[in-house]
Amino acid sequence: MSAIPDEFLSQTAKINHASIEPFPNSKKIYVQGSSREDIRVPMREISLTETFVLGGTDGEVAEHNAPVTVYDTSGPYTDPTANIDIRTGLAEIRKVWIEDRGDSQVLTQLSSGYGSQRAGDSSLDHLRFKHIRRPRKAKPGNNVTQMHYAKKGIITPEMEFVAIRENMRLELVDESFRKQHPGQSFGAAIPKQITPEFVRDEVARGRAIIPANINHTELEPMIIGRNFMVKINGNLGNSAVTSSIEEEVDKMTWGIRWGSDTIMDLSTGKNIHETREWIIRNSPVPIGTVPIYQALEKVDGKSEELTWDIFRDTLIEQAEQGVDYFTIHAGVLLRYVPLTARRITGIVSRGGSIMAKWCLAHHQENFLYTHFEEICEIMKAYDVSFSLGDGLRPGCIADANDAAQFGELETLGELTKIAWQHDVQTIIEGPGHVPMHMIKENMDKQLAVCGEAPFYTLGPLTTDIAPGYDHITSAIGAAMIGWYGTAMLCYVTPKEHLGLPDRNDVKEGIIAYKIAAHAADLAKGHPGAQIRDNALSKARFEFRWADQFNLGLDPDRARQYHDQTLPKQAHKVAHFCSMCGPNFCSMKITQDVRDYAKTHGILDEGAALKKAMAEKAVEFKKQGAKLYKSF
Amino acid sequence: MSAIPDEFLSQTAKINHASIEPFPNSKKIYVQGSSREDIRVPMREISLTETFVLGGTDGEVAEHNAPVTVYDTSGPYTDPTANIDIRTGLAEIRKVWIEDRGDSQVLTQLSSGYGSQRAGDSSLDHLRFKHIRRPRKAKPGNNVTQMHYAKKGIITPEMEFVAIRENMRLELVDESFRKQHPGQSFGAAIPKQITPEFVRDEVARGRAIIPANINHTELEPMIIGRNFMVKINGNLGNSAVTSSIEEEVDKMTWGIRWGSDTIMDLSTGKNIHETREWIIRNSPVPIGTVPIYQALEKVDGKSEELTWDIFRDTLIEQAEQGVDYFTIHAGVLLRYVPLTARRITGIVSRGGSIMAKWCLAHHQENFLYTHFEEICEIMKAYDVSFSLGDGLRPGCIADANDAAQFGELETLGELTKIAWQHDVQTIIEGPGHVPMHMIKENMDKQLAVCGEAPFYTLGPLTTDIAPGYDHITSAIGAAMIGWYGTAMLCYVTPKEHLGLPDRNDVKEGIIAYKIAAHAADLAKGHPGAQIRDNALSKARFEFRWADQFNLGLDPDRARQYHDQTLPKQAHKVAHFCSMCGPNFCSMKITQDVRDYAKTHGILDEGAALKKAMAEKAVEFKKQGAKLYKSF
Repeated sequence: MSAIPDEFLSQTAKINHASIEPFPNSKKIYVQGSSREDIRVPMREISLTETFVLGGTDGEVAEHNAPVTVYDTSGPYTDPTANIDIRTGLAEIRKVWIEDRGDSQVLTQLSSGYGSQRAGDSSLDHLRFKHIRRPRKAKPGNNVTQMHYAKKGIITPEMEFVAIRENMRLELVDESFRKQHPGQSFGAAIPKQITPEFVRDEVARGRAIIPANINHTELEPMIIGRNFMVKINGNLGNSAVTSSIEEEVDKMTWGIRWGSDTIMDLSTGKNIHETREWIIRNSPVPIGTVPIYQALEKVDGKSEELTWDIFRDTLIEQAEQGVDYFTIHAGVLLRYVPLTARRITGIVSRGGSIMAKWCLAHHQENFLYTHFEEICEIMKAYDVSFSLGDGLRPGCIADANDAAQFGELETLGELTKIAWQHDVQTIIEGPGHVPMHMIKENMDKQLAVCGEAPFYTLGPLTTDIAPGYDHITSAIGAAMIGWYGTAMLCYVTPKEHLGLPDRNDVKEGIIAYKIAAHAADLAKGHPGAQIRDNALSKARFEFRWADQFNLGLDPDRARQYHDQTLPKQAHKVAHFCSMCGPNFCSMKITQDVRDYAKTHGILDEGAALKKAMAEKAVEFKKQGAKLYKSF
Repeated sequence: MSAIPDEFLSQTAKINHASIEPFPNSKKIYVQGSSREDIRVPMREISLTETFVLGGTDGEVAEHNAPVTVYDTSGPYTDPTANIDIRTGLAEIRKVWIEDRGDSQVLTQLSSGYGSQRAGDSSLDHLRFKHIRRPRKAKPGNNVTQMHYAKKGIITPEMEFVAIRENMRLELVDESFRKQHPGQSFGAAIPKQITPEFVRDEVARGRAIIPANINHTELEPMIIGRNFMVKINGNLGNSAVTSSIEEEVDKMTWGIRWGSDTIMDLSTGKNIHETREWIIRNSPVPIGTVPIYQALEKVDGKSEELTWDIFRDTLIEQAEQGVDYFTIHAGVLLRYVPLTARRITGIVSRGGSIMAKWCLAHHQENFLYTHFEEICEIMKAYDVSFSLGDGLRPGCIADANDAAQFGELETLGELTKIAWQHDVQTIIEGPGHVPMHMIKENMDKQLAVCGEAPFYTLGPLTTDIAPGYDHITSAIGAAMIGWYGTAMLCYVTPKEHLGLPDRNDVKEGIIAYKIAAHAADLAKGHPGAQIRDNALSKARFEFRWADQFNLGLDPDRARQYHDQTLPKQAHKVAHFCSMCGPNFCSMKITQDVRDYAKTHGILDEGAALKKAMAEKAVEFKKQGAKLYKSF
């Protein structure tokens, strides 16, 4: 490991090349907040080409198409004006907001024993991020969570930021499109606008969270809740078997480029602490972890040697680095463990199985449960959110919705109420493997027992029989549970059950989950969700090929697939596609229908139609064959 | 095109190599019918390895795992004992069944003018299938449809064949698995068995069809209906722009290898007639077509020049080749056409737009509608099934479930009743692009207005924004509508909207749709569907890696993905996987829990648990760290 810095720098160049490049015909824009100047919400604006008159004079413009604004998770990496250097990390856009609140202070040293030990170990210098800052913590007696402010009626800059972000300049795009297509639907809830006050209210009642550790000042705030856009999480992390710091940072930038709203660092190998620092300093999205993984490393993998003290120190260590949410498996109670013995796949959650083993070894109740209020005290001093882990989630179809799973869920509901007494933001993790007909029961039960705290599910996978394709088996379940009300979907890659995902797998998993999340947004009637669909479909109908590619989730692949069949540049403006060839193009024929209906004033049914058709049939027949330019 | 035969033979070798290879650890078995010896239903039997005692002596067998039988669409190609030569075609397994019924006759010549013309054109000799047979047709006054026999109370060999096929030797596998896992669920409807009488009854009432043209004697019969396994269709076809006969035959064998239950030949280019002959003679699955495509070629792409006579001759031409089902867009009525003018994407069905154009040009009602009873007369003379086309299906989210779409659906319902009066088997085609919350309305309305005739949908795609990934956007909708009751799902490949699918795209589309169909079978509680999931998950839990790969839909990819992270042979028997490494394996820890619970007799909750745990905690702690073999 001697030459890491140089290797890392060369890797850095590679990361930047792939991630800095803006998407085609897109520019990064920033929408400024009203309460303060330094609220600048990043979005991606996709420019569209003009619609030309079909069959008219070459180049005659029939319609200008307004640009479409889309939600952008990619951070400064896709802003050509940003100065990216992963050795120094991203700009601290939240720093002043946090300082201005005056309820936290910069500590003189790290509070965690392990953190101090790593910081003082010069043999790790070559791995270490160069600009580590001193940690910030709530002043004694203060609570710095977004929920705490929300309950007090305070709208924070973070709340205004997410309100603007969720709206995606809906008012602009919608108005423009509406003018052109007065009859079109845009989803059920239009023109609902997300206001900062609505955000505050949702956070106050626990129905949404803004994961935003005061030590993660580089964060572009986002919100997780079922009255907002459905979010997705991408996992990364090294393990004892494979992968390195460089790969993990690379996967993070790659993952957010394609749309990951949060990233979980699930590292279990060596140098977890140092890897995490690099990731957080360079991440514009919330970072989640499962602290028990690192705690277990500290006792050499022996679950039974875990102690509350070791775990507590790990929480503080990570909180002071800026982790935004912790998965805590506090619902794996001693009495639930034997309920898993008859399952086909027992306990499949790593955290769940670690705690189950500890409980049995000590014949004591799960220490995460017995120390839960102490954990809350730590969380609220840094604003780390709970992601209450489903340690007993089903690992196969046969084990879905059983007594162990639902027993734990009820306990998570109890714990949610305790967390809320401390104003600690909380989401609840869910399954797993669940057949379609049993998915809704999960959502309904979660809402009922967890007081509407946001649900955060892994899939669920709707069948076990497709290893190599579990991004698809699970995208089905994810889309459905998203529609039913799940706020965030944890992605599954094609490598699930088989191996660690590489860059390509990360992208495949993320795109599958962006599809699931967006399908859910459409089904829920989320304001504005359908604008992108409508703009893309209009481009498709009008053979504006480049616009169709650029409005898609993956412009590169769309263009590449198109070019495999019709590679020439001329085909990008062809009024037919390779599926059918020029004579069989249904879109072309449809334009006949539309032109005819328009010319003859028969857009409405009934008498007008009958009259016009009778009169004009011959004329249409005569002109029909010459309606198009030929190619 | 001079050297086609040689090129074709070299292509043949390629096809055979990829398609003949049996799946790993699998053998083709044939289950014999009870009514006659020559009913031999093909299935694939996957052998499994033994479960070894974890932590016990090396090689000690804890459990034998019964083989799993799965539905097999791949035909003789995966039978190493079959003699495959695509120049002679497959064996005529149905020939004697049809002859024995005595209600049909071999004609002395082709009934179609176009067919005769092509047959007499010596310039086509080099393209022609070498062993064309004379066509068979019902004797005057006879009706040879499976529905006709079913209504008369006759159980045909085809009906017994599909009954055996649907059961997949459930009784064997189920019993074996049940013995080992007495508490496990196997889906809601177990132990329901599909009987030949049940098949007959479902076909008689129109709730299922067995597409089986009497000229497609090579067919291995299958059934489409919502009380049977959900089926999938794969499309292929050349176009004026690209592809050739060889490629299309290759795609067919490749498609059925991965699970396509039927194949639609959507060719629109040249030599459609000859391409079709090659495909049917080599296809063990039903072949569907859209005859209007070929009819349009006959009038050089000018929709307005189409006539009933040209179309009628095309139907007969194709029926005498052995096409099993025809898509007929008879519901595109004149009065519905203007309803599409305000849509974002108008009419996206090729057949629909052709008929719409014809209606407008002539100001006459759709000739497929006005000649519908004459079409029925042709269908019943060969047992071609109707697939009533949805020419007005929505092409984007904004156009879903509109007046044009549902108007046409109601007309398809009327036509279904007419078809049934002629005992012609009928299925109904459905959308398209539909957001999740509007999918169920499609299914409910189809069942209501079409008298429970089977529904056959294209997806539906649940969002428009992911060109390049529409196998996923549509697998979501397909799984859901399959659960709601759709009988067959028409696949969508990643190239949808962008280009023509190649071999790899065909496979990606089919696997995505096998996932959707199987997820639907699980959700519907189809007898035995869950056996494969359970067997795979048990293999996964026990680290029987090879069994996990082999039970999957794509063993090749599962193995390849696994080997990317852990390439060594030793890792195939490793009791951990690359996701977590040896210390973090939750399955390993679960086995601790299970062993502990078993040893101490605490599988049940309550007093026993409490007692054992209190007594044995220390002992467990002592032995815990040594419970496994180390690697």
